[in-house]
Amino acid sequence: MEQGGKTVLGLAARDASGVLSPFTFSRRVQRDDDVTIKVLFCGLCHTDLHVIKNEWGNAMYPVVPGHEVVGVVTDVGRGVTKFKAGDTVGVGYFVDACGACGSCRAGHENYCPELVLASNGVDRDGAATRGGFSDAVVVSQDFVVRVPDGLPPDATAPLLCAGVTVYSSMVQFALNEPGKRLGVVGLGGLGHLAVKFGKAFGLTVTVISSSPGKREEALGRLGADAFLVSQDAAQMKAAAGTLDGIIDTVSAGHPIVPLLALLKPMGQMVVVGAPSTPLELPAYAIITGGRRVAGNGVGSIADCQKMLDFAGEHGITADVEVVGMDYVNTAIERLERNDVRYRFVVDVAGSKL
Amino acid sequence: MEQGGKTVLGLAARDASGVLSPFTFSRRVQRDDDVTIKVLFCGLCHTDLHVIKNEWGNAMYPVVPGHEVVGVVTDVGRGVTKFKAGDTVGVGYFVDACGACGSCRAGHENYCPELVLASNGVDRDGAATRGGFSDAVVVSQDFVVRVPDGLPPDATAPLLCAGVTVYSSMVQFALNEPGKRLGVVGLGGLGHLAVKFGKAFGLTVTVISSSPGKREEALGRLGADAFLVSQDAAQMKAAAGTLDGIIDTVSAGHPIVPLLALLKPMGQMVVVGAPSTPLELPAYAIITGGRRVAGNGVGSIADCQKMLDFAGEHGITADVEVVGMDYVNTAIERLERNDVRYRFVVDVAGSKL
Repeated sequence: MEQGGKTVLGLAARDASGVLSPFTFSRRVQRDDDVTIKVLFCGLCHTDLHVIKNEWGNAMYPVVPGHEVVGVVTDVGRGVTKFKAGDTVGVGYFVDACGACGSCRAGHENYCPELVLASNGVDRDGAATRGGFSDAVVVSQDFVVRVPDGLPPDATAPLLCAGVTVYSSMVQFALNEPGKRLGVVGLGGLGHLAVKFGKAFGLTVTVISSSPGKREEALGRLGADAFLVSQDAAQMKAAAGTLDGIIDTVSAGHPIVPLLALLKPMGQMVVVGAPSTPLELPAYAIITGGRRVAGNGVGSIADCQKMLDFAGEHGITADVEVVGMDYVNTAIERLERNDVRYRFVVDVAGSKL
Repeated sequence: MEQGGKTVLGLAARDASGVLSPFTFSRRVQRDDDVTIKVLFCGLCHTDLHVIKNEWGNAMYPVVPGHEVVGVVTDVGRGVTKFKAGDTVGVGYFVDACGACGSCRAGHENYCPELVLASNGVDRDGAATRGGFSDAVVVSQDFVVRVPDGLPPDATAPLLCAGVTVYSSMVQFALNEPGKRLGVVGLGGLGHLAVKFGKAFGLTVTVISSSPGKREEALGRLGADAFLVSQDAAQMKAAAGTLDGIIDTVSAGHPIVPLLALLKPMGQMVVVGAPSTPLELPAYAIITGGRRVAGNGVGSIADCQKMLDFAGEHGITADVEVVGMDYVNTAIERLERNDVRYRFVVDVAGSKL
């Protein structure tokens, strides 16, 4: 749909092949409360893959992916009070919400039933939203966050989705209290950030992975306190009942009973990875010890700002591989085989299409 | 194992047939902190069936079932300060805990890893514990609760396990706040009590059942506010996103995705029924809306006392069918086909064996 505003060049998937190719389109006319942002960097998230390949059956082609944006404000509507031209800002997984529902009123607008996603969402005016793999985005100031000085824009981009997802999982369930013991299942885009935030919160962090080869990475470079191979029954048994919480980032099908057994009584597992097959949850595994499983979807805008401020204070950024726009299709293939440590970030402003 | 104390007559299963027959045994010698209780009434719970038939593979025959005891104190050890002869008291699912672990120190001794169950448990001295289907029980005062005046002992017995299980599920997750909307799945021993406690807390209670025939019972006699047939997709869809919490009491396998869809964002399901097949939990069903699933096992002794006090104030008792000891084997068969509204209670003191 033509929207009559700024013309931008981006990358779009045209069909379920998911192959991205150049696409010129117009952004909406800047509203009074809108901020126009020149995109500097945009992270590549697993969700982008699901959407561009229509794995969830909801793709509205052409789909411009990207919801981990860091950019610079170039223009603001006359009602904008929070930002001005030149500010370094971020945009994440969603760009609007109803403002009136229970979730919005409670400050959990990420659970608004009318949430407008940054990419492949439906905007208030009915148009499909187009994401950050493009020159510029136009977003209401209420859905823009400030990037603290000192955070590098490339390695900060993944914080806008992966970062807030693991941060809010900890904060929401009081798993950010110093001294608590956190398990992080899966060492990928979300998992490696969970380790970093966990350590910054003063937690004792155990990485649980199916890949014994990730031990050195987890304990050495990322600074985790312990490492468990999920298939090693003896290791898992020795660690039974020791964790206050677990963040499960794994997006492939996997058994959760051995993970639940790692929790202390009344311990909390937070599921943030989305396997396509259902998790098997025997009632005894949660009734015994009163254990808890919850899902968490991203986090609120307020959480996102707090997360960025915390990241700024503690120097937390993602481990990224920065690539050009011309490399995105290759990056997608590599992401599908988890061949990245730990997040691709596209240098949008620095690329020629 | 002979324990050298009071000789009592009870009913025991001798093998996996689960058939109960008279059994004479001795209780432990009353310890300083022990209370000796003449059993008046004892409820029959699904858990008793699982244990006496060795369905969990842990039966230590002969098994004397029964963990929903109401009785009268007949003797106390010299260190007992909380009770005296003549007091009407209750004993529930467990009769001892370590007192030192994290759960015990936090007042959640029901999750102590060394919890001693009232029946078919292992006492501190290594002896198998024997339950309430017997003349008398001997229990530490710390695991005995006071039955408020005015509560009839027969219809109070099921509160000691079924009652505290649903009560603590509500209290633990703030589902006892007036005006909240609670779903109760399954209208049996636990479910009918969940409705009663929910209404007493000032909640709007919706019963969800696979049996359309329970509508009248739920809305009429039990006073629920709404009734949903779980297989009626249109009804379920119309109620999507309306409940703050759900207590799932169903002990047969069943789909939980349609139930989770009834929850508001960040709503809480509490699983207290224990199907033998795993529940299927697709990640999307909890990540969407940040929904939560937890198990709950009974409740603490403090919860149990608060529950009884609350029941006393609000006149809450179970709907029971009182039977004699000679009817217990028939009651077991009927309970297996859910042919009871809603709980069998055995008149232990009033029966001859």
